[in-house]
Amino acid sequence: MEGDPTLRLRVFDLNCWAIRYLSKRRQERIRLIGDMLRQEDFDLVLLQEVWSERDYSDLNVKVGGCYPFSHYFRSGVIGSGLCVFSRFPILDTLLYQYSLNGYPYMLQHGDWFCGKSVGLVIIKISGIIFNIYVTHLHAEYCREKDAYLPHRLVQAWELAQFIRHTSKAADVVLLGGDLNMHPEDVGIRLLRGWTGLQDAFAEATRFEGCEDGCTLVPNNCFTDKSELLPFPLGIRIDYILYKAISSFMVKCEEMKTTTGAAPGTDVPFSDHEAVMATLHIQRQGQAAGATLTTAEPTLADVVTEARTEVGVGLRAAQQQRYSSGRMALLALLLLLLQAVAALGALAGLGAGQPFPKLSFCLLAFLAIGILLLATGLHLFHTMEVKMLQSTEEQMRMVLRTLQERP
Amino acid sequence: MEGDPTLRLRVFDLNCWAIRYLSKRRQERIRLIGDMLRQEDFDLVLLQEVWSERDYSDLNVKVGGCYPFSHYFRSGVIGSGLCVFSRFPILDTLLYQYSLNGYPYMLQHGDWFCGKSVGLVIIKISGIIFNIYVTHLHAEYCREKDAYLPHRLVQAWELAQFIRHTSKAADVVLLGGDLNMHPEDVGIRLLRGWTGLQDAFAEATRFEGCEDGCTLVPNNCFTDKSELLPFPLGIRIDYILYKAISSFMVKCEEMKTTTGAAPGTDVPFSDHEAVMATLHIQRQGQAAGATLTTAEPTLADVVTEARTEVGVGLRAAQQQRYSSGRMALLALLLLLLQAVAALGALAGLGAGQPFPKLSFCLLAFLAIGILLLATGLHLFHTMEVKMLQSTEEQMRMVLRTLQERP
Repeated sequence: MEGDPTLRLRVFDLNCWAIRYLSKRRQERIRLIGDMLRQEDFDLVLLQEVWSERDYSDLNVKVGGCYPFSHYFRSGVIGSGLCVFSRFPILDTLLYQYSLNGYPYMLQHGDWFCGKSVGLVIIKISGIIFNIYVTHLHAEYCREKDAYLPHRLVQAWELAQFIRHTSKAADVVLLGGDLNMHPEDVGIRLLRGWTGLQDAFAEATRFEGCEDGCTLVPNNCFTDKSELLPFPLGIRIDYILYKAISSFMVKCEEMKTTTGAAPGTDVPFSDHEAVMATLHIQRQGQAAGATLTTAEPTLADVVTEARTEVGVGLRAAQQQRYSSGRMALLALLLLLLQAVAALGALAGLGAGQPFPKLSFCLLAFLAIGILLLATGLHLFHTMEVKMLQSTEEQMRMVLRTLQERP
Repeated sequence: MEGDPTLRLRVFDLNCWAIRYLSKRRQERIRLIGDMLRQEDFDLVLLQEVWSERDYSDLNVKVGGCYPFSHYFRSGVIGSGLCVFSRFPILDTLLYQYSLNGYPYMLQHGDWFCGKSVGLVIIKISGIIFNIYVTHLHAEYCREKDAYLPHRLVQAWELAQFIRHTSKAADVVLLGGDLNMHPEDVGIRLLRGWTGLQDAFAEATRFEGCEDGCTLVPNNCFTDKSELLPFPLGIRIDYILYKAISSFMVKCEEMKTTTGAAPGTDVPFSDHEAVMATLHIQRQGQAAGATLTTAEPTLADVVTEARTEVGVGLRAAQQQRYSSGRMALLALLLLLLQAVAALGALAGLGAGQPFPKLSFCLLAFLAIGILLLATGLHLFHTMEVKMLQSTEEQMRMVLRTLQERP
């Protein structure tokens, strides 16, 4: 690009739905994704839900010729699922694991085990420094009664804070990922308002793909049709967001999504549609200056709304901490009572054996089990309370700053 | 400082050893610390091991007049123990929790429950942006056979990476805390080499306090004398480190430590000595430029040394993951055998009752207990392996970059 005033960057983003043993036709789809990436020759590929390092390695072998630089972000028990393939050298990386990410006992949802994170890779193209973020936030299992909203809001907040604090020397910021939020949701408004990121779909000069840019659509054979009943067109939860800092300008020339089955097959790449953006980056005379695009009174409203939701989560977490603590105490009491009874029986105080041995033992084991479980839960909810309090306080601090400004 | 070319900043750092119910004379010492902070009138106070929010609030009430701005960092079950008091407004904060921090089953050490982290507060004084970091790394319980060295090295690496990535817009970087490493340890060399931070003690024009700047000394009545036997003067594990970026210069004019008992009493402020630095910050004509003070071949040696230690930890973690997995499998097998035996007995296949009911039940409970415990351990060590691998890979990437440079 030396001598050329405009840099053209083609970005690909996809939640690959590659859960070993669980995702349908996983290996076939990973092969299809690899083929397509090789043919299309993007500059930057951001993937989520590549849970198995084996799948990552297979992809790497396949696309290594076109994308010689790549990074897989490890975290949690299963992994972060995040990886990046790039045509340009990756200069540095950093991973930030969200402090809240669902509950370990919600085994059927499993988010907790994934160590959901945001990964950062730094790339320099023609002297322009790009901070590229890839992330995947907690899933929404029930929109009407979304028990994970406070956790997802904490994640959106931490994501925004992480981007703000780590991107100060970047010329261009790019975020791709499955945010598990609809465009009008408070979390998206918070993220965009607090970072100044722009939505590639909304800014695109040309768009091609699923109606309204949806990325979870009913005519993808892998999606759960019942979940999409209230949304006949589908929903948009996968994003490419961007902004330019310092003296650069970014424009989204073209935005595309895949539309169900991969070309020439009956298999879609994933249960999500991929999003692809073509960005034009241009050096401009004056510094872009303002990093917050949302007018500040609006941002204050959004932070207030988010803070209210975090507050709801905080009270629920406090209640659960209290209940689990009380349960642990009751189990401990029962154990103490049993110990007293057993000692009494041993000392020959009781008339004969008051309780059959087997039931007595079973009861003791039950009490120990409940004690351990309830203590574990109590510790977990104590951490949850701390992180929700911390986020609420940070939001309060930001609100004060916003309100104090003339 | 407008019109004045030099800014003088007085920084105080102390590991307060304020563990509820466990630390000796805690409330009295917190009062003494508060009194001293009020009298001395520092600009910035960085504290560790303030585990109880109540202690923080008490301190805040006491010193709020002199230090109107403060922040307490919440994390983990117990908290991060980190807090900051400042004479200048805190503009922003961020917390990064280290991905590894000991083992939950090492109850006697307890580090895991603390959610050890690095806290960042951003302060602007006379137009100069300060990124202030406060942290506390995993303790060293046995120097000869330090089982936590790989975890502490991962923490030192994450600390360095966090500072590098978040301080790019700062004019001055300051780090205070209990790093639990001696000045010549590989973790300190890694941190300093990879961030370019300078040691206030080594750079100070004047020094006053414990010999060699030690912060854990035998003549403090709260220290464990047996641990300090190989070090008759004590050890230096608490630091104030700094560096200037862009066009500023920082000099340490004076460095002090407390020396055992607080003035006018027989009680020291803590089992650690406080470190106090007076820094001079001056704008200079030319940009400071280089952020790495260590010559790069030396840095490569340090990263290689650290990577070797992380590798040792990785192999140990892999071994533990394997052992716990095998144990879980054996417990599962035992349970299956019991189930088969029970079903056989129920179907009347066995001759009479092959096993007394009570022992049979106890054995089943034992197997369930071992299965749960071993599965938990297996999951934990899987995460440990992932984070050690991730750090090792990042270090390898950095080494490649360092070696490729002309």
